[in-house]
Order: sequence, then C-alpha cells, then structure tokens
Amino acid sequence: MSQTPPTVGIVMGSDSDWPFMQEAAEALDEFGVSYEADVVSAHRMPHEMIAYGAQAAERGLKVVIAGAGGAAHLPGMLASVTPLPVIGVPVPLKYLDGLDSLLSIVQMPAGVPVATVAVGAARNAGLLAVRMLAVHDDGLRAKMADFQADLKQQAQAKGERLRR
Amino acid sequence: MSQTPPTVGIVMGSDSDWPFMQEAAEALDEFGVSYEADVVSAHRMPHEMIAYGAQAAERGLKVVIAGAGGAAHLPGMLASVTPLPVIGVPVPLKYLDGLDSLLSIVQMPAGVPVATVAVGAARNAGLLAVRMLAVHDDGLRAKMADFQADLKQQAQAKGERLRR
Amino acid sequence: MSQTPPTVGIVMGSDSDWPFMQEAAEALDEFGVSYEADVVSAHRMPHEMIAYGAQAAERGLKVVIAGAGGAAHLPGMLASVTPLPVIGVPVPLKYLDGLDSLLSIVQMPAGVPVATVAVGAARNAGLLAVRMLAVHDDGLRAKMADFQADLKQQAQAKGERLRR
Amino acid sequence: MSQTPPTVGIVMGSDSDWPFMQEAAEALDEFGVSYEADVVSAHRMPHEMIAYGAQAAERGLKVVIAGAGGAAHLPGMLASVTPLPVIGVPVPLKYLDGLDSLLSIVQMPAGVPVATVAVGAARNAGLLAVRMLAVHDDGLRAKMADFQADLKQQAQAKGERLRR
Amino acid sequence: MSQTPPTVGIVMGSDSDWPFMQEAAEALDEFGVSYEADVVSAHRMPHEMIAYGAQAAERGLKVVIAGAGGAAHLPGMLASVTPLPVIGVPVPLKYLDGLDSLLSIVQMPAGVPVATVAVGAARNAGLLAVRMLAVHDDGLRAKMADFQADLKQQAQAKGERLRR
Amino acid sequence: MSQTPPTVGIVMGSDSDWPFMQEAAEALDEFGVSYEADVVSAHRMPHEMIAYGAQAAERGLKVVIAGAGGAAHLPGMLASVTPLPVIGVPVPLKYLDGLDSLLSIVQMPAGVPVATVAVGAARNAGLLAVRMLAVHDDGLRAKMADFQADLKQQAQAKGERLRR
Amino acid sequence: MSQTPPTVGIVMGSDSDWPFMQEAAEALDEFGVSYEADVVSAHRMPHEMIAYGAQAAERGLKVVIAGAGGAAHLPGMLASVTPLPVIGVPVPLKYLDGLDSLLSIVQMPAGVPVATVAVGAARNAGLLAVRMLAVHDDGLRAKMADFQADLKQQAQAKGERLRR
Amino acid sequence: MSQTPPTVGIVMGSDSDWPFMQEAAEALDEFGVSYEADVVSAHRMPHEMIAYGAQAAERGLKVVIAGAGGAAHLPGMLASVTPLPVIGVPVPLKYLDGLDSLLSIVQMPAGVPVATVAVGAARNAGLLAVRMLAVHDDGLRAKMADFQADLKQQAQAKGERLRR
Repeated sequence: MSQTPPTVGIVMGSDSDWPFMQEAAEALDEFGVSYEADVVSAHRMPHEMIAYGAQAAERGLKVVIAGAGGAAHLPGMLASVTPLPVIGVPVPLKYLDGLDSLLSIVQMPAGVPVATVAVGAARNAGLLAVRMLAVHDDGLRAKMADFQADLKQQAQAKGERLRR
Repeated sequence: MSQTPPTVGIVMGSDSDWPFMQEAAEALDEFGVSYEADVVSAHRMPHEMIAYGAQAAERGLKVVIAGAGGAAHLPGMLASVTPLPVIGVPVPLKYLDGLDSLLSIVQMPAGVPVATVAVGAARNAGLLAVRMLAVHDDGLRAKMADFQADLKQQAQAKGERLRR
Repeated sequence: MSQTPPTVGIVMGSDSDWPFMQEAAEALDEFGVSYEADVVSAHRMPHEMIAYGAQAAERGLKVVIAGAGGAAHLPGMLASVTPLPVIGVPVPLKYLDGLDSLLSIVQMPAGVPVATVAVGAARNAGLLAVRMLAVHDDGLRAKMADFQADLKQQAQAKGERLRR
Repeated sequence: MSQTPPTVGIVMGSDSDWPFMQEAAEALDEFGVSYEADVVSAHRMPHEMIAYGAQAAERGLKVVIAGAGGAAHLPGMLASVTPLPVIGVPVPLKYLDGLDSLLSIVQMPAGVPVATVAVGAARNAGLLAVRMLAVHDDGLRAKMADFQADLKQQAQAKGERLRR
Repeated sequence: MSQTPPTVGIVMGSDSDWPFMQEAAEALDEFGVSYEADVVSAHRMPHEMIAYGAQAAERGLKVVIAGAGGAAHLPGMLASVTPLPVIGVPVPLKYLDGLDSLLSIVQMPAGVPVATVAVGAARNAGLLAVRMLAVHDDGLRAKMADFQADLKQQAQAKGERLRR
Repeated sequence: MSQTPPTVGIVMGSDSDWPFMQEAAEALDEFGVSYEADVVSAHRMPHEMIAYGAQAAERGLKVVIAGAGGAAHLPGMLASVTPLPVIGVPVPLKYLDGLDSLLSIVQMPAGVPVATVAVGAARNAGLLAVRMLAVHDDGLRAKMADFQADLKQQAQAKGERLRR
Repeated sequence: MSQTPPTVGIVMGSDSDWPFMQEAAEALDEFGVSYEADVVSAHRMPHEMIAYGAQAAERGLKVVIAGAGGAAHLPGMLASVTPLPVIGVPVPLKYLDGLDSLLSIVQMPAGVPVATVAVGAARNAGLLAVRMLAVHDDGLRAKMADFQADLKQQAQAKGERLRR
Repeated sequence: MSQTPPTVGIVMGSDSDWPFMQEAAEALDEFGVSYEADVVSAHRMPHEMIAYGAQAAERGLKVVIAGAGGAAHLPGMLASVTPLPVIGVPVPLKYLDGLDSLLSIVQMPAGVPVATVAVGAARNAGLLAVRMLAVHDDGLRAKMADFQADLKQQAQAKGERLRR
C-alpha cells in the first residue's frame, strides 16, 4: 500500500473481491498514484459506508473506485453522498456472469452518475482514475500517453510473432 | 391515507413511481392495514433514507415496502439498516422492461434479504405485507383466506362466462 | 432437525436441492427457530404438494420456504393454497444460471405473491423468515439486530486485514 | 363452442388470455376437432385446477392446451396430474415480452414434459393438438397434409404478387 | 435398438448429440415403444433431411423427436414436411447455455408447430412421445399413469430420507 | 424490379417481411446491381425453398439475401444447399425484439456459414452483397468507395448543422 | 452553444442522437462548463473520428462525452486515441432497448477504459464530466455539492406532496 | 502461412485470439486460398488498424476476417475504411459467453455492414470467405460444392455408425 496520502479510494463489499480489485491498485501503482484499499460494505456496514462516502472529499481523496457484485449498491450509494467521481466495477458472482452486477451499477437515475467499466475490469477502473486525475496534471497525462504507446508496441510485437 | 398509526411504510424513489406503488396501498386498504407513503430516495436523499430505515422499527412500522427502478438500491439499503422485513417492487423504466430493476433488487448478498415481487407488482407487495402481518394475527389471516376464496370465485365466474 | 414443533417449513422439489436449501435451515438454527425439511415436489407429487400447502397453517407453520429450479412452480403453487407468506429460492440448474428459476418464481400474477430471494440464496430465505417471525417477536428482532451488528463487525475486521 | 363431446381442453388462467387463446380454438374448428374452453387458474383456483387435470382423461379429453403468462405454472401443473399430452402456450405479459412465460413453461423437470410452442402462438398449439390426434386418425392426418399444401399455395401466391 | 418396426424416429444433427439424445431412447425403452435413431443433419444433408421428414409418416413413424443445437433448424424443418407431431430438444452448445437452441426451435411461425421441451431434456422428449402415442392406446396411458405414480413414490422416499 | 438477369436473390418467408426487405433492393438499385425478389418460405414451402437454393448458382445468382423472423431457418437452409454466399437478415417479430431471429440465423454450425447483419438491417444486407460482388469488379468497388465518401460528407454536413 | 473555449467535447454518430445527447449539454450549462457538440461518426467518418480523438487533448478539451447506439464503437475508439477520460452514453435504438449499445460501450478490453453511464443517460454523462472537472476545481465541486443538496430538497418536496 | 500473395487478411485484437482464429486459416488452407494473419488491435493500435483497413484493397486483399471479443470494435472499424467485405467473428471472453462480442459486431448502423458468423465460429468465417471468393471463381465454387458433399458423407457415415 502506498505511503503518501491516498488520492484514490479503492473499496469493495468484501475482501473476497480483492483478487479482482487489486488490479485497480496495480494500475495505480504503475502510474505512481497513491491509494487506499478498504472493505466498505453497503449492506453490512451501511452507516460506515455512508460516512466513508460523505468524508471522502474532505479526507483528500480525488476519485473513488468501488467494486461490487450481484445487487451491487456500493458504487451508486457512494456517488450519492460524494461530489467526487465514482468508478464502479461490476464483480461477477457465481451465477449470471456479472450481468446483474453490471445493471445494478450502471443503470443509475438522473442526477447521480457512476462511471462504470466492464465486468471484472478492475484494471481499467484504475486506468480510468488515472485519466481523471490527469485532467489537470500534465505529467500524469504524458504518462498515460506513454502507456498507450506501450500498449501499441506490445500489440505490434504480438503481431510480429504471429506473422513469423 | 389511513388515520391510525401506520403499520406498513410504502416508500419509493420518486413520486413518479406512485402510479405503480399506490396499488400496494390499495391492497392494504382492502385489508384494513394502516400505512404511510413517502418519497425516500436512496440516491437523492441518502442520509434521510438511511435514517428512515434505521428508525422504521422503533417508529412502529412492521413491514417496509420499497419500489425502485433501474439501479434500484432503495429496498436493499433499507433492509441493511432495519431488522424488519423489506419487500422490494421492481419498477420498470423506459428501457429494459424492469429486468435491471429486478436484478438490482433480488440479487442481495448473504445476510441481507429483500422479499422481491414481480416487475411492477405493487399490489402483490401489499398482499405479501398482509401475509407477513397475519403470521401472528388470526383475524388478518382469516381475511386473507377469504380473499383467496374470492379470487377463486372471480376466476370461476370468468370461466362460466367463457363457457357460455 | 429441531425437536420443538416446527415454525418454518423448508420444502424442495428433490433431495438434490438439499445442498442449497440446508443453508436456510442453518440460518434458522442460528436464531433458534424450529423448522421441518421435506421433499414436496410440485410436479412429481402434486396432490401431496397441494395438501402440504393447504394444511401448513393449521399444522402451526408460520412461514414456508420453498426452493425449486427451472420451471420452478413449487413456491407459487404453495402460495396459492396457503395464506402464509411463502419465500421462494430460485435453485440454479445446469443451464441458464438460474434465470429460468428466478423468473418462474418471482413473476407471480396479481393476488398471489411469492417473496423471492436471489438465485441460490437459501441462507437469505432463512434470514427473511426470521425477519417475518420477528414482526411480532421482540426477542427475535433483537437477535436480528445483533446479527446485523455482527455482519458489520465481520466486514470491518475484513477491512482491517485488508488495510494492513 | 363445439357441440360434440370435447376432445381438446383449452384452458387459461384468466379470460383476459382469451384473445390469445381463441386462435387455438379457431385452428381446431378448421379441422373439425371438438373442444371446450375454460378458465382454470393455477394460482386462483388451485384445487379446481388439479381436479381439472386429474379428471381430464376420464372425461374423454385427449389433449390439453394451456395458456399462461409470467410465472406460468398452469401447463406444468396440469401435466403433473394427467397422463395426457399438455401443450403450453407462453402468453406475453406487459413486460419481458413473454420470456418469463416461455421459460416458466418449457423448463420442466425430468419426468413431466410440456409441449411448448412459441410466445403467443395459440394457433400453433391448436395445430399441434391436431397433429397429435392425427397420430391414429388417418382422416385427420390427410387434412393436415391438405392444410400444409394450402400453406404452400398461399406462400406461393404471395411470391407471385411480390414478383409482379 | 428395438427390433419391431419403429414407432418413433429419434434424429439429431450429429452423433455428438447422442449423449443427450439417448435419454429419449431410454425413456421409450422403459415404455416398450419401438424407435429408430439416426443422424439427419439439416445443414449437412438437407435433401436427405427433407426426404426423411417427407417419408416419415408413410414409413410408419408416428412421432419424430429431433435434437439440435445453436441455429437449430432440424425440428422445424422436419415439421414443415411431415404431418406428424415433431418434438424438439434444444441441445446446449459450448456457449449461450442453449438459449439460442431453445429460441431457434420453439419460435416457429404460425402453421408449423414444434413441441419443444426444456434445454437438454431428451428424456422428457421421449416421455412426451409416449403421452402422444397413449392418446389412442389405453395400455400405454395406464403405463404412463403408473410411471407418474412411481415418480411420486420416489419423491416421497426422498422426503422420508430427508426427514430422518 | 430490375430487367437484366438477376445477380442477387432477395427472398423472405412472407410478403409481410417486404417492408423490411425492400431496403435491400433499394441499396442494390443504387449500385445498379440487378436482383429478383421472391417469397420462399422455409416452413410453408420447404421443397420449393430447397429447390430455390439448389438452383440459385446455376440460375446465375451470385449472392442470396434471406430475411426471416423468429425461428428463422430460411438463411441457414439456403446456405446448406448452395455454395453461394448467403446473407441473413434477422426480421424482428412482435415479441423479443428480433433476438430470437438473430440467434436462429447467426449461430450456424461449423461447415455452413450465414453472413448475418443487424436486426432489421436489410439495407446493410444489400450493401454487403455489393461488397461481395465488388471483390472481382473494380467498377463496383469504386462505387462503394464513392458511397463511403458520401456517407462521410453527409455525416460531416450533419455535424456542421449541429455546430451552428 | 457556449462562447468560451470548450472544455468538454460532446460527440455523437448522427444528429439523430442529439435529442438524447443535448441533455448532457444542458447539464454542463447548469454548471457553467463550456462545451462543443459535433457529429463524429466512427463508421461514416473514421479518419476524422480518429483525428478528433487524437487532437482532443491538445485542442484543450478535458473530457469527451460520446453517445452511440447499436454496435456503438465511438466512445471506445475515441478512448483509444486520447489520454482524456471518455464518457460513453449507450443510445437505445429501435430494437433491443439499448442492451447492445451498453455492452458495445462498457465491455472494453484491459488498457482502454470508457466511463459508461446508463442507457440513454446523457444528463448523467454531463454530470459525470462535471465531477471529473471538479477533481481539481473547488468551486465546481461546491456547485456539485449544492446540486446534490437541491436534488435532496426536490425529493423531499415530492415526499411532502405525497404525504398530504 | 501461405507463400502466395495473400487474398484474405485474418486479423485479431491479440494473439490470445489465435487459438480461435486459426480455424479460419485452416479452412482457407483446405481450399488453397492464400492469407495473412496479423494482430491489429482496434484499441491498442488504432492508427495502424485504420491504416490496415484503408490499405487492404490496394494491397490485394479481397476479404478481411476480423475476430474480436467484448466491446468488439475491430470488424466494424475495418469495414468503415475498406470497401472489401469484412467478416466478423465474435470471440467469447471469460464472462457473458460472447453475447457482448456478438452484439458489438453484428449491430452495425446502416451503411457499413459486417458479415457476422456465430460466436467462436472462426472456421465458418474462413468458409464464408471462400464462398465470397467463389462468386467469380468457378473452380473454387466447385471445391465448395465438393466440400458440401463431403459434409453430407460424413454426416451419413455418423448416421450409419449410430444405426448399427
């Protein structure tokens, strides 16, 4: 876990979501973005969850990443108590392949958006947080541009191997 | 709205859900069960929503009926802060025919159940509340048995008309 | 199986559903709620199934929990012959991830509700039964409040471990 | 309604299904197959529904056609109490386009089949009943062959008009 | 394979469907109904498939059972060239859990019904064929009634074991 | 209808599909590609349908466009009897929004492909036929390139109006 | 359209999407955030679309909002050529209720996230853009907090009217 | 990889798609059609992807086969920059069984078609390319007819083994 005051809060309903959600942390690490990770369950600790969201901005967080599965209420509830952008990661459960998680997160009513990424796509949640932070941070945006250039090189290298 | 202290709380995210949700109230009226109806939005008034759920039992409510659509978080969030049984009504929105509402309400994690009824089935939510209240109220249970006998008679009358 | 006269009837279409359904029994055990468990198949013993439902109330049952998969007719049929609240557990079969079971159970017509929980969520069915029984049982409601406090503590402990 | 003792029983949960289900009757009329039509609701008159199914064979019915929507239990429950072939017609309700009706009817467990036709396809249910009755009725089978020849002619006539 | 002239034709698009489809044959064996089993591919041998269907009735078959997966055209195409009742078995493929197979089989246009059973439910296809044949065969119908009584006994025995 | 010998065959199960399918014809007209349009029903005139497909190549057709809805077997059956490329257009019916049509057309087994376009996308079927014909026709390919340039200009003009 | 250099780019595949997408513009207007609106079609003007995305950052845009329907490629393609955060709005088309649009936008591969909002939720896209811009703009964040307080007041006023 | 100048371009977003996509190559090999295979990622190397599509025709390619999963934008984007026919193969990812891939590929807007095959059906993509090339190549068409005759023989041989 990073030592500087966290810029991004990565939260999830249970530590069993950590195998998914840690990919968000890894992405932030690659960009040198500090973060905290915590279990904040909408249904098991609702008051604490509300408090987490309500205090997120004043505690210095800039972006919140929330992973949840099934009736996935965590991202939307946090978005309702913070003015910060909240990124929702639909965690797939044993049945339904995450379709329930996706709809529960993305179909938010007018007024309270959640920035939703693909089912299980915690890494992309991290990268999306970086893009948001880079809006006013030219250094970070340059890193993102480099990252995209790397993606291209890797894809091209794969193509070269395939063509051989 | 009934004059006696309310036994059932009927809540919804917006008054635009009332055309659906009032059928729950009508069902309770038929059984002489008192209720209150209110707008309690999970996403627009989260603190008040949490407070509503947390105080529901001590305020004398016995059952909560919550209708919500899309990323429908209201029933599950209320269930997380009250020990009362919470009945969820999936309200269909303009797109997806209520499938998103249904999954967002019914797919609750272990520990916090929501008693879910059919898409748009507010009347059945009212009837389910009556059944719950009748668990320890023989008079109410007898009324429910009468109601079921009426359903039979109506169905049989329809059959008679069809056979003619 | 509990020795006191059963308060909750847990029924399922086949003993192959027991691995799912026993979680309902375990939840009731945790709350000291007596129950019976039985195979009551809507399609293989329809007359006995109807009889089971029709006699449930007079036999002293207060709540019925019914698990079924595929064209899952057991919960709805029981609800049609008893005034008791019936909780339906959609059991996932080999294909379709329980979506067929869920829709077959939850989409009941006006007049006959089934309190539906998540796909495979037998534990939540047990907890929902407890909430219903607690409507008029302050001791049980206090236990449910304690249970919810425990859920919170466990979630917080998980958070602590994650933060370390 | 035909005057001879009915060969086919056409049943539905409510007379509101009749606009769909009468197409089954019309198909039977075209083939001179006698039938009866009745409201037999699985959920509103369960005992009578079970009795209807249990007596269908001894009353002389050869095939049962059952239409139902949502948590559509009628066809499957009838199939569980009669040895006759039961044809299920998924009636589409206001939401979900009949997908719930289809899955509730077709996904029957091993041992108790329902011959399911397309969503809203009551006419095909009538035609399927004719095919079943024609298994041991050469005259009826010849009529079905004629009917199929007519279908071809109509399709060809449509083609001619289109080609002009 | 049975020695008497076959009454039921069990066909499938590939011998890889046999593990599913042989359950239809086993059900027919239990009832002493003769059958033939064959590979008749709608897409790989269309002319022969059409011929199989067109000759089925005159060859003495009374019912056709057709299993197919994906874009499952075999049952519907056979139904279009024979006046016999055709039972369709949706075979689940590697992806989509048989939902494509089910819709491809059941959603037939007006005029040409296919009696569709559950995804992978070849055993029920066999049992449905028996019910159809029993329409004019009292002995077979009595066997089906016995079979249903057996189902009940087995379910009850399971209940007994569970209650112990 | 074009006067030169037809290059593309546009077929559909019923003339009620023509409002959809004529957009394919219009697209071909725009490119000066000759075609014929006909009703060729897989289920109502199966022998003629097979014959149509089997003779398509020798009659001089180069591409076949087939529209069908529900259990949409026409494109796949034609593809099974012709070596020509067959383009399938999923026609949406009253229920299920064409999802059944799409899956019935696209999910073809290995060996017999159908080139499937979007639900209701008959115009794109015509344009896809043009692309196929242009594989060995430089003039036609140049027209397609011009067409694409026009698409761009129209989109840009729309942008201009929006920006004003 | 705003006079100051645009901070947000609102783009869509066709001006027929404008009735949906203008709600994003209205939300930005409410917060005093400047924007531009344009037709940038992924499929009709691909080179210009790529150029739009590639130049977005250097032109001074901070966030891109892209609406698209069906095979909705615009948001993802823009995200692949810009380091800016891209918000995707699934536009519902005539069929499938926007489920195709949603999946086409949200299911992006690792490396290139799109911040997806609900089907048809252009207003929320605008609000999400405001939240992103507010990450480093305390005034804007205060406005968002005010906006959320307003949402609460409106919901409470609705509740008051309902309770009367 | 074939030595003659490639006629078909087989491209995919990552070499991890190769296990699927090589079946397209094998099909082309069987027909002696030359091809090239390459990694061309819509999202990781968008400029190169656009260039690949824009140059495909002038480089001598006649048909492009593109496989992609999830938000599968590759086939549609290539189709937007080339007048060649583009065949799309929906690659199934870990969740959702390729339904997202299918819809992202097939639901193209008017003007830019993609010839879509079944989920995971790369072999059929190869065979469809052969059919397209055979439109003006009688030798290739004869090979396709032979191939179809072989399919029939194999199916018949399977039938023979089953009948034994």
